Amino acid sequence: MKPSFDLKPVFEPETTAVIGVSTSNIYNPGFIIYQRNLNIKGYMTDKVFGINPKGGSVEGTELYRSIFDVPKNIDVAVMCLRAGDTLPAFKDAIDLGVKGFIVISGGFAETSPEGKAIQDEMARLSVHHGVPLIGPNCVGVYNPPYINTIIIPNERFVVPRSKGNLGIVSQSGGVLLDQFFCKNYERDIPISKAVSLGNKAVLDEVEILDYFVRDPETEVIGFYLEGFATGRGREFLLKSRETNKTIMLLKGGKSERGMRAASSHTAAIASNELVLAGALKQFSIINVNTEQELVAYVKAFSLLSGKNKPFFTSEFSGNMAIVTVSGGHGVLSTDISDRYHLGLVDFSDGEMEDIRGVLSPAVKNIAGLGNPIDLTGSCNDDDVVHVLEVLMKNPRVGLVLLLILPYPPMLSMSLGSRIASVVRLHRKPLITYLPWLAKYEMIKEPMNEANIPVGNSIEEALLMAKAVQMRAMAFERAKYNKIIDAQDVLIQDYQEFTRVLGEISKQRERKKRNVTPDGEH
Amino acid sequence: MKPSFDLKPVFEPETTAVIGVSTSNIYNPGFIIYQRNLNIKGYMTDKVFGINPKGGSVEGTELYRSIFDVPKNIDVAVMCLRAGDTLPAFKDAIDLGVKGFIVISGGFAETSPEGKAIQDEMARLSVHHGVPLIGPNCVGVYNPPYINTIIIPNERFVVPRSKGNLGIVSQSGGVLLDQFFCKNYERDIPISKAVSLGNKAVLDEVEILDYFVRDPETEVIGFYLEGFATGRGREFLLKSRETNKTIMLLKGGKSERGMRAASSHTAAIASNELVLAGALKQFSIINVNTEQELVAYVKAFSLLSGKNKPFFTSEFSGNMAIVTVSGGHGVLSTDISDRYHLGLVDFSDGEMEDIRGVLSPAVKNIAGLGNPIDLTGSCNDDDVVHVLEVLMKNPRVGLVLLLILPYPPMLSMSLGSRIASVVRLHRKPLITYLPWLAKYEMIKEPMNEANIPVGNSIEEALLMAKAVQMRAMAFERAKYNKIIDAQDVLIQDYQEFTRVLGEISKQRERKKRNVTPDGEH
Repeated sequence: MKPSFDLKPVFEPETTAVIGVSTSNIYNPGFIIYQRNLNIKGYMTDKVFGINPKGGSVEGTELYRSIFDVPKNIDVAVMCLRAGDTLPAFKDAIDLGVKGFIVISGGFAETSPEGKAIQDEMARLSVHHGVPLIGPNCVGVYNPPYINTIIIPNERFVVPRSKGNLGIVSQSGGVLLDQFFCKNYERDIPISKAVSLGNKAVLDEVEILDYFVRDPETEVIGFYLEGFATGRGREFLLKSRETNKTIMLLKGGKSERGMRAASSHTAAIASNELVLAGALKQFSIINVNTEQELVAYVKAFSLLSGKNKPFFTSEFSGNMAIVTVSGGHGVLSTDISDRYHLGLVDFSDGEMEDIRGVLSPAVKNIAGLGNPIDLTGSCNDDDVVHVLEVLMKNPRVGLVLLLILPYPPMLSMSLGSRIASVVRLHRKPLITYLPWLAKYEMIKEPMNEANIPVGNSIEEALLMAKAVQMRAMAFERAKYNKIIDAQDVLIQDYQEFTRVLGEISKQRERKKRNVTPDGEH
Repeated sequence: MKPSFDLKPVFEPETTAVIGVSTSNIYNPGFIIYQRNLNIKGYMTDKVFGINPKGGSVEGTELYRSIFDVPKNIDVAVMCLRAGDTLPAFKDAIDLGVKGFIVISGGFAETSPEGKAIQDEMARLSVHHGVPLIGPNCVGVYNPPYINTIIIPNERFVVPRSKGNLGIVSQSGGVLLDQFFCKNYERDIPISKAVSLGNKAVLDEVEILDYFVRDPETEVIGFYLEGFATGRGREFLLKSRETNKTIMLLKGGKSERGMRAASSHTAAIASNELVLAGALKQFSIINVNTEQELVAYVKAFSLLSGKNKPFFTSEFSGNMAIVTVSGGHGVLSTDISDRYHLGLVDFSDGEMEDIRGVLSPAVKNIAGLGNPIDLTGSCNDDDVVHVLEVLMKNPRVGLVLLLILPYPPMLSMSLGSRIASVVRLHRKPLITYLPWLAKYEMIKEPMNEANIPVGNSIEEALLMAKAVQMRAMAFERAKYNKIIDAQDVLIQDYQEFTRVLGEISKQRERKKRNVTPDGEH
């Protein structure tokens, strides 16, 4: 039985020791992490300590020969030694009273029985002393200005633009850096905290979920997992019940082949994706199926949810209105809405006349007044703004999707700013599409600033609408679930779910131990 | 019966008259088109003529009061007058012997019975005199340095980077400009020629397909259509048989709701998508279902097909090898491969040993040697290059998919350049993924230059692989179809297809005439 760990030392350390800092190899993980943490802590050498048994210095800063030489209490030790050298240093740090560990190095359970024995002993000590351990075999924790142990060299790392509300948990360091950090950077989505789990020797998705659920900065939580830690699927689901924060899960290894690589029990495996989907749905966790969904959902939830954006909670259940300036975009968005089961409001004749009433003479008689509303390429800023106002005021409309093409000559570069004003006033969710070329940034940036999601394709915008619809439905389901919580059907479902996943995890571990690295990649 | 038109005057005019040029309104279509064509023809006022009944000048260049005043023969007249003023000018131009027409203006069949009557009379004259007519209600033709009638203002237009091998045909001006021009610009895909069809009063998808099939510049042809011109589906399919060029079709209005907007015959409609898919497959036309597929397929075909890239025709049928430096990317790409039914080679023990044999000591014992091959974050440039060489030489591998993360410290900025050399030597298709951030451009640009497709997501890269697989299968099917060409099953299928589409087109026209503009939007 694992204790309830205090994760503050690993996420918000005052003092950090990096154990295993090369003095000569700039690509050495210890070198990179030592330098990076000195950077984010403003070069305070009384907060960040580098350890190298031979001493020496890094870019002019002296290293310590042993953690016992460090003049301060150490909150977190970041271990960057070879696996074989890790255990003695780990024990020293435990003896010294270090309060948390992030073990970056690989070479443990994922590579050999000897490595597994070392990992098991570290885990035993961690649990015994109640000191949290992240990893081993991970890229670690991202939470500046406290800590950043991401091991890729500074010149390659993508620094998030600012502090946001998105917490990220990934079983793969590559996916953390690429599908989360890189894609979020492209989309101007800041991050609150991120962590890569590695081999999950001690801390796994359940403890991190618990921490993020309590973290006031984090309002949206995104997971990439290839499996739950053995027997932890059930706790994960139950933990998700304790919050109204949005939780997303992209599960890798869903496909038959991906699964087949891990197990020969095809029948059990084939049913697993459905069991997973059902369990996530019951527990109001957003089930992410593709990379495109991931980036769209992250953007929609980061921008639209949270304490500063109360309009997100407005009811939305298939009552969308689409506004476009190109009939082709109307047709394509209708096709996609159908594919995603997004409902569109059927406007009454009276509602259509309300819309027509605000249109300029050039557009009044040629606009398409169905849903999608096609303002045509003859429209101007006022047409867009006035139609938006009508739709925002219409209680039958829960969400507006606006497909902006910057080509019509009467649409000015002020359009984005005016749209932001309408949304600010009416507080109903608006999702937009606008091509992301640099020359159209004048329209896009004011919308970014106002937390209006701007998709990079019609599809991405529709996926963001789908995200809002799923979240609204999850809210409803959560209310319902509280009533039927004890019903057998639920219990049975997640017991089966936990059993199957646990079985698969074990098989994967057995198999991977002999073939490929597990955990971090 | 339409004659066989000579389309040279509309696509490659020596002389262009723009009829209806405002002297004061810089957003007037005639003003924009006159200026743009002067620009692309190097300000040769003896090649581009602007017409305004009141005369006057535009930015210092004199206009003509009538086409009869123009001192040269006119190859193409670009009509930018109001619908009501168009017919007399059209007749004058016919009398003068103008050889082709592009009618930009709207206000014809898409808006009123009166407009339809004018359009019908223009069509009658066009057919009677054998003079081609594009439009009305369109953004026209893009083929610099001959002509560019795209009506959006210069500052908003995205100028393709260079002349390419992709011909574009769109029923929607918005989709032409956005899903084709904008997205291709983002992806560095140049364009050979483009045309927007508008109301298709005379020229439709069949004549343009015929022209592009014969056009030596165009090797890949992308269509966006919302329906075939009445009774022309069959000709379109048969015409596609006359070429080995790659033809793609994104059909808008596929969804039940999209269709419902156009017709109440739900049963006929529901079957239509399947009929369409079946017909396109039989005729080796690539059926594009989503925007994401469109941009991925366009990129894959533009870069990999054509006379200068013979390696594209190498056999590929589900024998892909995936190489990654992140286990998570391996898992996600396997999931996607499964979803897209892309087959991966199962490497034998001997083949795995061949791969292991070329790896560096740091990677040899930790790399995953299945398929995907996971070189891990410890790999260097040589590992990637040498594994690529092994796979390129292996006749069991038809296509290599390389997922490059730029984060591993031992991967240098020279990697893309070295990869390009391997592909150049071995001439087997390689598709890559690399995040598109500016700071990684040093890896990406040499691959762009070598026509190696670089996707912007794992999914986009896999969709490009799917494109290659579909094309290879279409080649096979085309051989087969030549044998069974006369079989009843085929004939029946496309007769049914033509009948259903024709029926829908008629209903759409009837309905749209009363409600929303057709054709260009």
